[in-house]
Amino acid sequence: MAEPVLGRSARKRLTILSAGHDLFLSNGYQGTSVDQIAASAEVSKQTVYKHFGDKQELLLAIVNNALESTVAPFLERISALADTTDLEADLTALAADYLRAVMQEPVVQLRRLVIGEANRVPELAQLYYDQAPARTLAAFTDCFSALHDRGLLHAPEPAIAAEHFAFLIVGRSIDQALFYGGPQVLAGIDVAGYVRSGVAVFLAAYRPQAKAG
Amino acid sequence: MAEPVLGRSARKRLTILSAGHDLFLSNGYQGTSVDQIAASAEVSKQTVYKHFGDKQELLLAIVNNALESTVAPFLERISALADTTDLEADLTALAADYLRAVMQEPVVQLRRLVIGEANRVPELAQLYYDQAPARTLAAFTDCFSALHDRGLLHAPEPAIAAEHFAFLIVGRSIDQALFYGGPQVLAGIDVAGYVRSGVAVFLAAYRPQAKAG
Repeated sequence: MAEPVLGRSARKRLTILSAGHDLFLSNGYQGTSVDQIAASAEVSKQTVYKHFGDKQELLLAIVNNALESTVAPFLERISALADTTDLEADLTALAADYLRAVMQEPVVQLRRLVIGEANRVPELAQLYYDQAPARTLAAFTDCFSALHDRGLLHAPEPAIAAEHFAFLIVGRSIDQALFYGGPQVLAGIDVAGYVRSGVAVFLAAYRPQAKAG
Repeated sequence: MAEPVLGRSARKRLTILSAGHDLFLSNGYQGTSVDQIAASAEVSKQTVYKHFGDKQELLLAIVNNALESTVAPFLERISALADTTDLEADLTALAADYLRAVMQEPVVQLRRLVIGEANRVPELAQLYYDQAPARTLAAFTDCFSALHDRGLLHAPEPAIAAEHFAFLIVGRSIDQALFYGGPQVLAGIDVAGYVRSGVAVFLAAYRPQAKAG
């Protein structure tokens, strides 16, 4: 008996997304053809077009799918920090996970791919920025606003505080990884010490008593 | 009478570099052929190969040339800061110029081009990183080390302080500009206010009296 059409179609869709993800990250957007993706996914070219329209739409779907699985869980972690009872310890632990997360090679490769195509496919670059860095900064903004209200931070401009925190922790590494690759950069960092010094700078500026002193 | 051979050759070299720079930034590395560069520079393809070996060597020369003209003058500015008699004012002025410099569209476009080719041409990515971000961070490190010795900063780890300063000032903008373009990002920033808040965080952490308090 044939399996349900919807199930098979959904499976094919996922197979195409996965094959396209791997090929685009390995060979770049221009170095990858719909023919290759179809062959790798063991479907016809027509099936790819039926599911995704064209190569560019497929790339948008792949990026959207990849970000949803990597960014969404981290946003919940940031949100939970608003309820901390030990700010310095929890901020430090979160910062270490944040740094390790953005240094993962597939994350770095996806960034490279999107940035390399930003001129030709600006809607892809905007999708990426809105779905990843902007959403992460918005989550930190909400969190720091709540911590300000609780009196644990003095951050009357929580959006600026969010940027300061994010780039104190991951700024140099995320920048260097675009050129050198994530694992190579991470291997050169003492994550615990690096994160501790970034958190110390942030708290020196944003701890309420620091402002009073 | 014919002009000196060396002069003509050097001029041709500069013309090829300039034509290649414009075409690579507009159409990407893979979207640009040596034929197009030769046509735009009004030289033969053989002349391009004679001067630069191949397309990849030409790209390396173009990036090297572009960085030399944009990065070198800024390194002198950073170096001069070590002699400041008004740290906060001079640091703030330098920070504003730094932010504006990295948001220039040709700078952002060059970054995009290099990052987009980082997998295929890793030596280009390493050349770029070493010649631009790493050199800038090294200049800040030397400067903060001198300011530490003068007692104007408490920065026993000047390399970390350099990273903190750089990414407090340009981190978010340089990241966003890779996706949105430099002028668009700069247009959304109150440069004076943005820079002031970054400098305030840096000084809260690295001013000697802050450490004593």
